[in-house]
Parts: sequence; C-alpha cells; structure tokens
Amino acid sequence: MKKIQFADQKQEFNKRPTKISRRSLSRSISQSSTDSYGSAASYTDSSDDETSPRDKQQKNSKGNADFCIKNIKQADFGRREIEIAEQEMPALMALRKRAQGEKPLAGAKIVGCTHITAQTAVLMETLSALGAQCRWAACNIYSTQNEVAAALAEGGFSVFAWKGESEDDFWWCIDRCVNVEGWQPNMILDDGGDLTHWIYKKYPSMFKKIKGIVEESVTGVHRLYQLSKAGKLCVPAMNVNDSVTKQKFDNLYCCRESILDGLKRTTDVMFGGKQVVVCGYGEVGKGCCAALKAMGSIVYVTEIDPICALQACFQGFSFAFISLLLYVVSVGNKNVVVREYMDRMKNGCIVCNMGHSNTEIDVASLRTPELTWERVRSQVDHVIWPDGKRIVLLAEGRLLNLSCSTVPTFVLSITATTQALALIELYNAPEARYKQDVYLLPKKMVSKCVFFVVCNMGVGQNYGRVQGFESFF
Amino acid sequence: MKKIQFADQKQEFNKRPTKISRRSLSRSISQSSTDSYGSAASYTDSSDDETSPRDKQQKNSKGNADFCIKNIKQADFGRREIEIAEQEMPALMALRKRAQGEKPLAGAKIVGCTHITAQTAVLMETLSALGAQCRWAACNIYSTQNEVAAALAEGGFSVFAWKGESEDDFWWCIDRCVNVEGWQPNMILDDGGDLTHWIYKKYPSMFKKIKGIVEESVTGVHRLYQLSKAGKLCVPAMNVNDSVTKQKFDNLYCCRESILDGLKRTTDVMFGGKQVVVCGYGEVGKGCCAALKAMGSIVYVTEIDPICALQACFQGFSFAFISLLLYVVSVGNKNVVVREYMDRMKNGCIVCNMGHSNTEIDVASLRTPELTWERVRSQVDHVIWPDGKRIVLLAEGRLLNLSCSTVPTFVLSITATTQALALIELYNAPEARYKQDVYLLPKKMVSKCVFFVVCNMGVGQNYGRVQGFESFF
Amino acid sequence: MKKIQFADQKQEFNKRPTKISRRSLSRSISQSSTDSYGSAASYTDSSDDETSPRDKQQKNSKGNADFCIKNIKQADFGRREIEIAEQEMPALMALRKRAQGEKPLAGAKIVGCTHITAQTAVLMETLSALGAQCRWAACNIYSTQNEVAAALAEGGFSVFAWKGESEDDFWWCIDRCVNVEGWQPNMILDDGGDLTHWIYKKYPSMFKKIKGIVEESVTGVHRLYQLSKAGKLCVPAMNVNDSVTKQKFDNLYCCRESILDGLKRTTDVMFGGKQVVVCGYGEVGKGCCAALKAMGSIVYVTEIDPICALQACFQGFSFAFISLLLYVVSVGNKNVVVREYMDRMKNGCIVCNMGHSNTEIDVASLRTPELTWERVRSQVDHVIWPDGKRIVLLAEGRLLNLSCSTVPTFVLSITATTQALALIELYNAPEARYKQDVYLLPKKMVSKCVFFVVCNMGVGQNYGRVQGFESFF
Amino acid sequence: MKKIQFADQKQEFNKRPTKISRRSLSRSISQSSTDSYGSAASYTDSSDDETSPRDKQQKNSKGNADFCIKNIKQADFGRREIEIAEQEMPALMALRKRAQGEKPLAGAKIVGCTHITAQTAVLMETLSALGAQCRWAACNIYSTQNEVAAALAEGGFSVFAWKGESEDDFWWCIDRCVNVEGWQPNMILDDGGDLTHWIYKKYPSMFKKIKGIVEESVTGVHRLYQLSKAGKLCVPAMNVNDSVTKQKFDNLYCCRESILDGLKRTTDVMFGGKQVVVCGYGEVGKGCCAALKAMGSIVYVTEIDPICALQACFQGFSFAFISLLLYVVSVGNKNVVVREYMDRMKNGCIVCNMGHSNTEIDVASLRTPELTWERVRSQVDHVIWPDGKRIVLLAEGRLLNLSCSTVPTFVLSITATTQALALIELYNAPEARYKQDVYLLPKKMVSKCVFFVVCNMGVGQNYGRVQGFESFF
Repeated sequence: MKKIQFADQKQEFNKRPTKISRRSLSRSISQSSTDSYGSAASYTDSSDDETSPRDKQQKNSKGNADFCIKNIKQADFGRREIEIAEQEMPALMALRKRAQGEKPLAGAKIVGCTHITAQTAVLMETLSALGAQCRWAACNIYSTQNEVAAALAEGGFSVFAWKGESEDDFWWCIDRCVNVEGWQPNMILDDGGDLTHWIYKKYPSMFKKIKGIVEESVTGVHRLYQLSKAGKLCVPAMNVNDSVTKQKFDNLYCCRESILDGLKRTTDVMFGGKQVVVCGYGEVGKGCCAALKAMGSIVYVTEIDPICALQACFQGFSFAFISLLLYVVSVGNKNVVVREYMDRMKNGCIVCNMGHSNTEIDVASLRTPELTWERVRSQVDHVIWPDGKRIVLLAEGRLLNLSCSTVPTFVLSITATTQALALIELYNAPEARYKQDVYLLPKKMVSKCVFFVVCNMGVGQNYGRVQGFESFF
Repeated sequence: MKKIQFADQKQEFNKRPTKISRRSLSRSISQSSTDSYGSAASYTDSSDDETSPRDKQQKNSKGNADFCIKNIKQADFGRREIEIAEQEMPALMALRKRAQGEKPLAGAKIVGCTHITAQTAVLMETLSALGAQCRWAACNIYSTQNEVAAALAEGGFSVFAWKGESEDDFWWCIDRCVNVEGWQPNMILDDGGDLTHWIYKKYPSMFKKIKGIVEESVTGVHRLYQLSKAGKLCVPAMNVNDSVTKQKFDNLYCCRESILDGLKRTTDVMFGGKQVVVCGYGEVGKGCCAALKAMGSIVYVTEIDPICALQACFQGFSFAFISLLLYVVSVGNKNVVVREYMDRMKNGCIVCNMGHSNTEIDVASLRTPELTWERVRSQVDHVIWPDGKRIVLLAEGRLLNLSCSTVPTFVLSITATTQALALIELYNAPEARYKQDVYLLPKKMVSKCVFFVVCNMGVGQNYGRVQGFESFF
Repeated sequence: MKKIQFADQKQEFNKRPTKISRRSLSRSISQSSTDSYGSAASYTDSSDDETSPRDKQQKNSKGNADFCIKNIKQADFGRREIEIAEQEMPALMALRKRAQGEKPLAGAKIVGCTHITAQTAVLMETLSALGAQCRWAACNIYSTQNEVAAALAEGGFSVFAWKGESEDDFWWCIDRCVNVEGWQPNMILDDGGDLTHWIYKKYPSMFKKIKGIVEESVTGVHRLYQLSKAGKLCVPAMNVNDSVTKQKFDNLYCCRESILDGLKRTTDVMFGGKQVVVCGYGEVGKGCCAALKAMGSIVYVTEIDPICALQACFQGFSFAFISLLLYVVSVGNKNVVVREYMDRMKNGCIVCNMGHSNTEIDVASLRTPELTWERVRSQVDHVIWPDGKRIVLLAEGRLLNLSCSTVPTFVLSITATTQALALIELYNAPEARYKQDVYLLPKKMVSKCVFFVVCNMGVGQNYGRVQGFESFF
Repeated sequence: MKKIQFADQKQEFNKRPTKISRRSLSRSISQSSTDSYGSAASYTDSSDDETSPRDKQQKNSKGNADFCIKNIKQADFGRREIEIAEQEMPALMALRKRAQGEKPLAGAKIVGCTHITAQTAVLMETLSALGAQCRWAACNIYSTQNEVAAALAEGGFSVFAWKGESEDDFWWCIDRCVNVEGWQPNMILDDGGDLTHWIYKKYPSMFKKIKGIVEESVTGVHRLYQLSKAGKLCVPAMNVNDSVTKQKFDNLYCCRESILDGLKRTTDVMFGGKQVVVCGYGEVGKGCCAALKAMGSIVYVTEIDPICALQACFQGFSFAFISLLLYVVSVGNKNVVVREYMDRMKNGCIVCNMGHSNTEIDVASLRTPELTWERVRSQVDHVIWPDGKRIVLLAEGRLLNLSCSTVPTFVLSITATTQALALIELYNAPEARYKQDVYLLPKKMVSKCVFFVVCNMGVGQNYGRVQGFESFF
C-alpha cells in the first residue's frame, strides 16, 4: 500500500464552511468524520477488548474473512437491530421486494462510506437484493454500531469499520474498500466526501469506470460543487442533501418528536404545566413548540424575524424576555443564550440546544471559577451558582437531538430510499442524460420517492390506489 | 365629460388570466369589479328606495355635497361598523396615532379605487390623519357597504360608490374621483387596475404629477407588468399582492377560521364527530384540516402531490376515496369534485368550495333534469337525487370564504397597513429610488409592516421591547 | 272553557330555583316560558301582519283547521328548516325508520309542550311515524319558529303556538291541546312543567288514563320532585334532564363550538393571536379554552378550585389577573366580572358570558352616567369610558351560546332521541315497572340511546358492528 | 430477636384483592412488595459485588453505622439523583422551606416503609427538615435505588434496604426500623401495609404511642379497612390512595407522557403518520389518544361503553376493527387483545399494554410451538409467525408505563406532598379530631395540597396571589 499523503493536494477542500475548527492542522479527515453521532452508537457494548480490529483475524460462519470489524460474535445482536430498523423502513423494504425480480442494480459495484448503523444496513441489504455488490467503510470514526457491522460481515458484506477508529484507521478502512484486487467500483455512495476525495487523490483512474456519485452531506456536496467549478469533476454527481424531502421533513417532524424524547431520556421532566421558552420559530422551533404545547407546556417564543413572529402569534404563542423554567434553544445563530440570560434564569431551569450547530448556547461563559459543574447523569450537568441556583445543562450545549435522542428511523428511511433511487437512476441512465456535473435529484424522482414512502406507510394504501400509480419504474 | 370609449384601446388588458369569462364583449370593466363580494355587504339594508344615487341631491351635516352615495342618513350605522373594524386593526390605528405628528403624507392627493368597506374606511381615515387628501370610488359594483360610504361622506370624504352600480355608474364614479376641478391626484391606490386604466386612457397627462401606484390585486398587478413590458408604465408601481404577508397569512390563517365560520353560518352543523374529506393539502387545505381536526372532526385528505401527501401523513391525516358526510374542497384545479363522486356521496353530505376559483366543483353537472334543486336557505341548496338522497351544496359551489363568512378584519388590516406604508414609501422616496417599473414591496418594508402588526397585537408588547425597535420611521 | 284561575293553587311551584325573578306577581307562567331563546327564533320573518292568530281562520291544503299558528303560508319555508335539521339528527331518523314497522307508539296520544323548532318537528314527526297522535303547544312565548309551526300544521299536526304569544295566549294554546272533544292524552312530553301543571289544576281526572310524563327541564323536574315529595304525583315521570348524556356532552362539546360561533357572528374577530382570559375551568371553561387554543388564541385562565386549576396547568394554560384583549366568562357564580376589572381592561376588550345564568358579569355596574353605551350591532354594545376606552359587551352579558349562536342540532338530537325512547319505555312498560315516582332514565336506556347515536353518526358504523348489537329493541 | 412467625396470624390479610396470585403459599410478604417496579430501579448499577449487605460493615463519612444498604460508596451518585428529583418536586421543596422555621414535625418519630427512590428521599429529607426523625425500610424487594439509599445513609438516615432482598431480608429490614433501643416510633408511613402488619403482630404495644398511620397503596388501605371493620384498628389512619389528586391526575396526565416515552425508549418508532388502535377510551385511553394524535399518529379507538365511545367521536377518533400498524392497549379488562386479533395484525405491529393489570394482552396464547420469540432488546420481543410476520411485543405484555418509562417525578411529588401534609395533620391534630378509623384526606387538605402544588409550579405565581392565600398553615 502506498503511503498516505495528501496534505498538499487538498486546497479546494479547505474552504468548506466550518464554524469552529476543532481540528489540528495535522488532521486531514473531514470534520463530519469526527463529530460524535450519539444515538446511533448508544447500544454499542463498550466492554469489548482493546485489541485493534486491524490486528485480529476474524471469519464469518461461512469462512469469509474479507472484512474488518470489532467482533464478529456480535452479529446476532446486530441482526436484531437491523430487524427493528426494517420495521420502520417500509418504503425501502417495498423497493427491495418490488425490484428484486428485475434487479436494476445488477452489475453495480458500489463502494460506500456512510455511518454504519442499522438503517444503513437495511440500505446495503436492499442494494444487494437489487443486484449490487457493496464494499463499505464508515464516514465517522465514532458512529459505527459494532454489532451492526458484525451482522453485515456475517451476511457476507465487506465492511471495514468500528467504533473508535484512529485517523489512520479511518483512511485505511476506506482504502481497503477501494483498493482490492479483482474488484473495481462503478458507483460511489458518499457521506462527507472523504471517500470521493480518497479515490480522487489515490486512484483517479478509477473514475473511468465510475458511473456516478451520490452524496448525502452538506460538506460533501460543497466539495463536489468546488470540484465542478474547478472543472475537475469527471463523473455526474447527485446531490441528495438539498432534496426537498430533507429540508421539509427532517427539521419539522423529527424535531417535534426528538425534543420530547431527548428531554425525557435526560431529565425525566414532566412536560405538562412547564413554562418553556423556545428561541427561534423557524422549522425546528415550530416542531419543538408544537410538541411541547401538545404535551401541556406553556410555550413562549423569542424571534427576530417579524414574519416568523407573526406566525408564532397566529399559532397562539406569546413572546418572552426572561428565562422561565424549561429552556429550549432552536435557532441557528451564535450565542443566543448568553451568560447574562443564564444569570437571570430561575433555579432548576433546563437549558438545551436543538439548533443547527453547537454555538447557540455560550457554554464557554459558564466555565468560570465561581460556577460549579456537577455531572449528574450522562449528558446532564448541573451548573451551580454561588447562591445555590442550579441550571441543568444538557449535552454540554451540543445538539440535543443528536446527542440524547434517536433520529427516527422512519425519517432516515426517506433519505435511504432517495439514495437507493439515485443510485438506480445514475446507474441506468442513458449516457447522455447526466454530464460531469452536480445534479439535484429531479423533482419527478423526489416525488416518486415520496410517493413510494407514502404508499408504504400503512396509512397510504388508499393514496396509491387513488393516484393510480400502478407501476413504479 | 367626454363619452366613454375605449374598446379599441385596451388590447393589452385582454390577456389577463380569467378562467371563465362570464362577461359579454360589450362589458369593459374588469372581472373582479363584478364578482359578488358577499360578506362585506351582508349588513347592508336592502330596503332602500330605488332612486339612483346619481339623481339624488344629498349633503352631509356640514353642508358638503362632494360625494355620491346611496343614503347619507345611514352614516351613524356606518360609523358603528367602522368602530368595530378599528378594534381589529390595531397596527393601522397605531400607525395613525404615531405618524399623526409628522404627517408623512402631507400634501398627498390620493385617488383610490377599492372595495368600500369598513376596513377601507379605517385605511382612508388613517391616510387622512397622516396628511393626505382622498377621493375614492368602488372597485366592484356589488361590494360597497352603503352605510360605510355614508359615514365616510359624513366625515368629509369625497366618496362615489354604492351597492349595485351599473357599468356606466362604475366608470362615472371613477371619473368623478379624478376629473374634478382644482384637484389633481399625485398618488393612486388601486385594486383591480380599473382606476389606473381609466387615467391612462382618459387623462394620461395626469401621470406627470403622479408619484406612484399601489396595486393590490392579481389582475391589477398583471396589467401593470404588461404595461411595464410594453414600456408604457410611466410611474413607479408597488405590487402589494405578492408580498410575503399575503401569501403566508391569508391562506393558512384566514381559512382556518373561515371554514368553521362559513359552515356554521350556512348549516349550523356540529363539527365534532363528523367525517370530512378535504381535497388538497396546500396552505388552504392545511388551514381547513387543522381547524376541523381541532373541533373534533375526523378528517381525510386527497392530494396529488406526494410531498404534501407526506406532510398530511405526518400531521395524522389519512387518505380517502369516497365521499363521506361532510365534504370540503380546497384545491385550485378545475373539476376536482365531479358528478361521479357526487353520485356516490352519502345522503346529507355537504359540499363546499374553499379553493381559489369557482370551478373546483362541477356544478354544471348537477343542473340536469333528474336532479331537483331546493333552495333551503340563502346560499344553501339541497340537490336531490331520484332516490331521495340529498347533497347540501353551499354557495352554489362558489368560494365559501367569500360568500358565506367574513374575512377576518385583522388579516385585512395587515394588507391595509402594507398599503399605507407603500403609499408613504412611494410618496417620500428620493426621486432616484424607484424607476418606472413594478416593484415588490422591499423585504425590509414588509418586515417593518409585520413588525408593526405584531407589536400592536396586544400579545406583542414584549416583542417590540425585546427587539429594541424604538423608532419606527 | 273555565276561567283560568290558579293563583291560590300553585304554592308548591313557587319554590323553584330562579335566581332573579323578573316577573311581576301577576304573571304566572314559568320563568323558562318567557326567557328569550335566541337562535331558535332567528330565522323567523318579523314582517308578518299583526293580527292575532287566535282571530284568524286558517286551513291547511287538506282542509284541516285543527291548529292555531301565525301563517300557514310559511309551511314550505318551515319544511326546508325541518329538512336541514333532519340531516343532523341521524339517530332519530334511524329510529324512525327502524321502528316504523312495529309502531311501538301505536295508540299513544301524546300531548306536548316544548320549544317549537325544527328539531322538535323532527321529533314530532318521528313520534307520529312510530304510531303516536300528537297535539302540541309551545313552552316559551318567544321561541316558536312560525314557519316550522306552519309546516307541522300543513303536515296534519295540531299545533297551537306562535312567536310572541301573550300570557293569556300561552295558557289558551296549552288548553287547546288538552281540552278537545273525543281525544284524551295518555302521554305527556313537557319542558318546564307548565303543561303538567295545567292538567293537574284543570283536568286532574285526565291522569287516570295517562301512562307517564317525560320532562326535560331543570324547572320541570324540580316541580315533579316536589309533587312526588308531597305525595301528589299520580303517574310515573321520567327525568330526562339529569341524564348523563346531557351533563357530559352539552357543556363541553357544545360550548367548544358555540364560543367560536358566537364570537364570530357578533364581532367577526380573528381568533389567531388574541389574548383571552377564560374565567373558570369547569366543563364549559374547558370547552372554551380548547377551542380558542386550537384557533391560535393565547388563553389564560382564572379558577378558584385548585383541582381544576391544576388541570388547567397540565393542559398548558397559565393564570392571569388582569383583563386582556378578549374576555370570556364561563363560570356559574355571580359577579365574577366586576366593574373594577372592567375599569382596568384594555381598549377594545370583548366581554361575554358562557356561564349558566346571566349574573356572571356585573352589567348593572356599567349602567352609570359616566359610561356611554352604543349599540353597534344586534347583541353588540360598545360601552365607552370617559377617556374613550371601549369595552365590547356581547348580548348585554346574557348567555352568548343561547343569544348569539345556534345550539348544534346534533346535540339536541341526542336529547330528542332520549325523549322518544323515554316515551316508548313508559308507554310499553309493564304496569308494575314504574310507580308514581320520578325516575332517572335507566343507565341501560341511556347507553342504548347513545349507542344508537354513535351507530348513526356515520363514523360509527364499525362501532355498531363490533359490538354486535344487531337488534335494538 | 424473636423468630419471625406469622402464618397463623394473618387471616385478615388473605382476602386482599389480588387478580392472580403468583406467590407460593409459603411466601408471606404482600404482593406489592415483590412486583418489579421497573423505572425506579433502572439506573442502579448491576455490577455490584454479591456479598449480602447484612454481612457488611459500613459506616458513613461521619462514622454512623445505623443503616444497612448495598454500598455506601454510591452516595455521591445517589445525591445527584436526589438533586434531579428536587427540581421536579417544587411543592415539597417549598413546603420544606416554608415550614422549616416552625418545625411542625418536631418530636415526630416516623417509621416508614415505601419504595426507596430519589423521590422518597426528597420526602424523607423534607420530613427531617420539618423536625422529624426517620427510620426507613423498603416496601418492595426489587425497587430500591441502591445509590439513593447510600445517599440517605450518608446523610444520616437509618435506612435498611437494597435492591434484591430475600423475603427474610425484607422482614429483617422492617424489624430493624422498629425494634431499636431508645427509639420508639410515633408515626407510621406505609405503602402496602407490611410495616403496619409487622408492628401489629410483633410489637402491638407500640401503638400506644403512635399517633397515626398514613397509607398510600390500594392493598394497604384495604387491609386497614378490614382491621377497622374487625374493630382492631387502634390508631387513626389516613387513606392517601383514594384522594382525588391521584385519581384525577395520575391516569390522564401521566399516561399522556409515558405512552410516548415508553414507545420511544423501546422501539424508537416515529409517531407521525402511524396508525394506532387504542383499546378503551377511559382516562388512560384519553391520555394515550391525545398524545399520539398530537404527534401526528392516526388514532382509532375501540370501546364498549357508548358514553366513552361518543366522547371519542366528538374528539375526532373513529372506530376500528382490525389491527393496524401500532397497537396500544389501555383498558382494564382481561384478554382484550386475543390471539385471533394478533393473528390478523399486520407485519410489524407493535403491541403494548397501558392498562391497569397485566392481563389485557393474552400473552399466554403466544407461547405456542408454531410461534418463534426473539428478544431484540431489553423489554422488546419479536413474535414471529410461520409466514414470517413479526409482532413486536413490549414488556411481555406487562404495563408499559411501569416497565419501560419513568413515572414523572412531578406527579409523584403531588403524592409525596399529600403524604407530608397528612403526617403533619395527624401529628398535630387535637386528640378528639380523629378516632380509631380510616379517614379520607379531607377535601380541604387536598385542596390545600393541590393549591400548594399549583403555586409552586412556576406557572402558578399569579394563581397564589389571585386567591389571596397568604398563609398556608
């Protein structure tokens, strides 16, 4: 294997929009590859031995050893997690069932780099059922569910991933997916752009046979647009991140559920009768407000934009200055909740962040000598003022919905279905249809995807029949 | 007065998007000027004498006779209606109070052509308090509230309007606003474009002194864009119709209230426990569904667009084929509810239209010999099938929210405030700021307007203080 | 006819619980017989001639003249109102259809004294379809819908009632129902006890053939208990007023709808974004709060009982001192809203009463010289303070839901179905089952009734089938 | 210590209402003392060593050894849990603060036997702050939070309890609370009646100095009524179980939150768009339905009682036969969900129990050879039909809200406050006020308690001031 060397080659990747760079200069993997992705990893047993997977010799029950994971023995537990996820991914399962006969991905050799979770496993097994061969690495060094990786390996997938990879491990795993004798990928499914970057830098000739890239993340899409702008993109790419489904559904409907879930799991607080201030009445704020109001909380809003403020009024929310008993943050700006506000909050106030980044709460201002921090549970700190007042800070001000609650599988299933359809589209499209450019998923395909989701929700049987969409492809 | 003649001059007005032209070729006023505008006129006493106002000699209590209305004696009743409206237009009243000192419209001579309703009266009296002189005609031959016109005349406004004008009356009234000795308008407030059209055709030289046009309606805006495209627009114009406030608030929040109001006033139906099918889950449908669900109806949705369908799912609505007990139509397509569906509806099903035009329900298909129509109340028909089944058709399939319920004054107050601010902006803008073009209201001004509305809602006191907007202008 | 004389005979009726007696001593009809019953009469044409119906000679189209009403020519209009009501009374219509064959009331001669409204007409025509003969008078001198009375007369019913009876007319009408040759009633359906009282005093021997009394009102039931206590009740009586259906459904579900309806019809106010104080969080208050919250109002509660207060908290309502923009009263105490509070209310505050009596708002305290009253619409007064502040008082502080909104027919249909079943039960019961006493409707019969209502709501088809109630009787 | 012997003495305890006796005859502790109390114990570290606490010698940091618990070293962790609980028990904390000066329990020697949880710890420390001395044992052999017991021991309380006691341990612990030299209890706080029973049988003379018993559980109250009936109750007892607060709030408001919490923690299911059947529309069902509807589920109801069914209709729920995607059980009957229904459910259907006992789902019928059970997570089983269909069964059909979600501390705080007030009342009452009988908490005291809760909810400040309750005692 060639020595990994790319520090000088990746200028165009340096301009990506990261609010606070927590990486030292010597680190080179993308930021998203190191962010902790809480919930997905929450069922992972932490008591495993400390031998590096790279030093282990493991085989699955059929004798296959073309993988590298933590512990093949966890396969059964992982299979259970996958089965749970399948229940909540009806559209993908229906796609699997429906397209199994025609195998639209027959001949596809997909190399993937995403979070290795139960939901991804359902996607991979669907791709496989549609005819594809897959090799997979993790796009984040912390987020792999080891037992799911085990189940995939047991099922014959070449998976190279474990929870707690080092940076060197990270690139090693990616390389092992790509650099294998007798197998050359013709499709890329990426989340963050690291896999694409790697192939670009190490095996550029591979792109001759690659029919397209499907990219999921903001960061990865940004990288692709830069490549495209620089004239260096040599295959068509599909931007799945900006599809309307993600924007429309992830924020409002996920947050409506995860605000309740996250608060319950961390604090067991009763919602009924609590006074809550939600900072910001955008999509995330709307979801949080709707859920808390429905549970009997008394919800106040702060909002700068008058249009959103008027919407809040018409939905029955009033405005608040000061901090009340339970405090939820949902906006995307920096330092919305500053020390001064927290100084004025009442004893017992819970402060948490449902925003987009980790900078909404000025946590740094709480790290001063006169305040005492007490860790009372995992993800829960009491910050204690000199007069004894306690503020309950969740997840140290990081995103509650990623740190302390699960992302509903159902929502992920929309994304996964979109990815599968994007792969099918790129793989089967006539050569002329897509140029060497970044494409938004065509509205028609998004509709197809959502239509498919609706038809398979249980509630949507009528929907399908009404519209008369008999054949999907 | 010159004879009215313009048949040959108005080609560019013929392309406006009217779905079904119900006018004979000899008619020349805009379509919107003849549509019945139900609720606004609902309190008008119909027992007036039949003498044409043009043949009457009337003076107000101060001896002023520069107006032409139905009956000056109704002024007191009209004043009451205006006072009721003032209660629901806090932003406009606050603007009146706040800007009274600086009189930003001092010197403005505004000629207006809008629905003459209590809400318009509040606008006119505000413009007057800000320093403007006003002359006003009706933009619709049916919609004038005679008693409000009387109150305006009594208050010294030169109003030329009454309910039930002929087409000749219509143009005569407009002409009387414009063509008056010793008074030349410098601002136009129009709704439908007929006033603008009239000045264009009859007194084009007036535009030399006119600083701008504020236009409210789809039709009028369309006309302005055509003029602009043809290079014939000679003053700046402000398109108030497409402002975000209208799109965002009118549909969702108005319909949420008017669906309940319209159904109650026509049928006294109990909502709790009723099964309702709402056709279409756009903004209007969302408002209808939310209201009916909250009142305990069991709501089903039909929807073609999968994105909206998925939103409906996530909000807890399921899909239906067939017609259930109470039927609400909200989409904007033609013939959504066809005869076949109505043949399959249950006895007693109520069918009504909350859409954008009057073509959603195929009413024509019900005008067949085998079906009997019975008018059971104003705006309520029973259509009776041969087997005795009755369908309850509201407003003969026309828009329920215009025909059978009032438009909440509060929502109109947002539009009226926007109009007032647009007039102030155009009147006071440095010459260079606006060219001879059609402008969308600047986002900043919209925000100002909405901010002002929120601050004066009662609920928004905190909002104003939080944001620190101390001075508005 | 004997001269009417009963001043000395009615001691036991004098103790009935009337909060404020507004009747002179010379008046002798029950209080409920003079209270205005707003909505029911709202469609009555007031332009009729002034001849007393007692002086008119009228026949229906079949030559029958055994009735006394305002104007037989209004029959068609009345028929329409009855048809509208039928749509909302599915349980009663189903009972009519189902029991038509077996005619469980064959031979019954029912004399009735209730409000003569479209809903009553549906009940009477059902009783007739089940085999009964009916003669009917009004229980209230104002509440008769003349056109409905006309339709009943046209249909062959002996109805004696019109809107605006004098007291002498009132008793004359009742007497004409009872005192007719060749017809002797064997069942009584009463609302208020006046009919029962009349027979008791004038024709006591009639009770020998009477099988039972069904009584609807609080007052009437009170009178019956007094008779029973005094040992003077000589037939079984059924107390329909205290049935669980009335207590459980009327308050919560009716008020949830009528608070919105009443406010819209009187003030056209927009609910979204309004601040509302609801005084009292009992069943009525719960209904009002739920509806206003759902429409986007910001709702505050005042409440004395801590249990209800805690329920309000858990439902997300907070407590308020002072009067906010829109003010709703729902409690049953005297003088909840006193002058002092109204002095502190903001300009434009709407004050209305959803309580049980008419004493919740201290209206008397507003009838002072420094305050000006302006009647701005029917049922709407502006009370103006010296500084110009206006309070909007609805229905002069009387019950909004009776004065300014309709009672949903559907809810009345539950009562009417209960009455019909009570009549059937009393008429067909074995002699020994009911003694000379007042009976609550047996729980089993209430269940039957409600079950029947649910099964015929459209939504309840499954309900019926699930429970396997195949035969109803 | 005398040998424990009571098999012959406890006849009157044998009649207590246990639905299914799962105990062998040789067991003698009350049923409630062995039921697993899931959530309370969920944070207990299970990795402790296996030495019996009775064999350990432990001292707290001040040298005190008068306790017997699992591990004094867990005190810090326990203190954190107590601090978390304090945040949600504002009424109790306010009572502690307010009554600290007057020490209404000065001289009280309370022996208690309840679940040893963080909430109980807050109660005990409050009693201590009010002047009482306490000795405490666990009322359930599984429910003790060891770390909380440690914190209490570290704080100087004589606690005798650990998770996983044997039956002998159980009685030994109780005995150690009572049978101590130089200390004789004068108040009893019991949950289940085992403590009371023990004193009765072993140390009857102690009752001479005991001022009263406060009992929390159904079982314990039942025992007290039996004693009272038999004339054997020799002190006054307060029945806290049947207080209105418990009945009114626990079911509706707790279940509204715990249905969501329990489903999320076990299955991570997304609620939006799911079809749910809730069996039974009593208080529990109402809470479940409200929560699920608010989260966007499509909710169907089954219900036998027509009154509840009509309420469901008016709230917008329809009825369902068959099993849809997500299935929730809430009724209190046996075998509501039978095998036949489960045979007809769709693949992936989740079945859980929110009822009152553990018999609603016929789990026994699923333990047949043709069905395969797979444990996929703690408390989550997949039951697999021969055709591959999976039903997801939660908590093996036991109560979801006890097994898989936490009981909100806030609700427990109402009970704890009631207990404290009951102790104060009994301890301070004039001798004549309470006889040797079982008393319901006086309505006035319940109101006081709830009032106190409301005033300290954060949202209730206004409430307190409005009502003018300045002094509480």
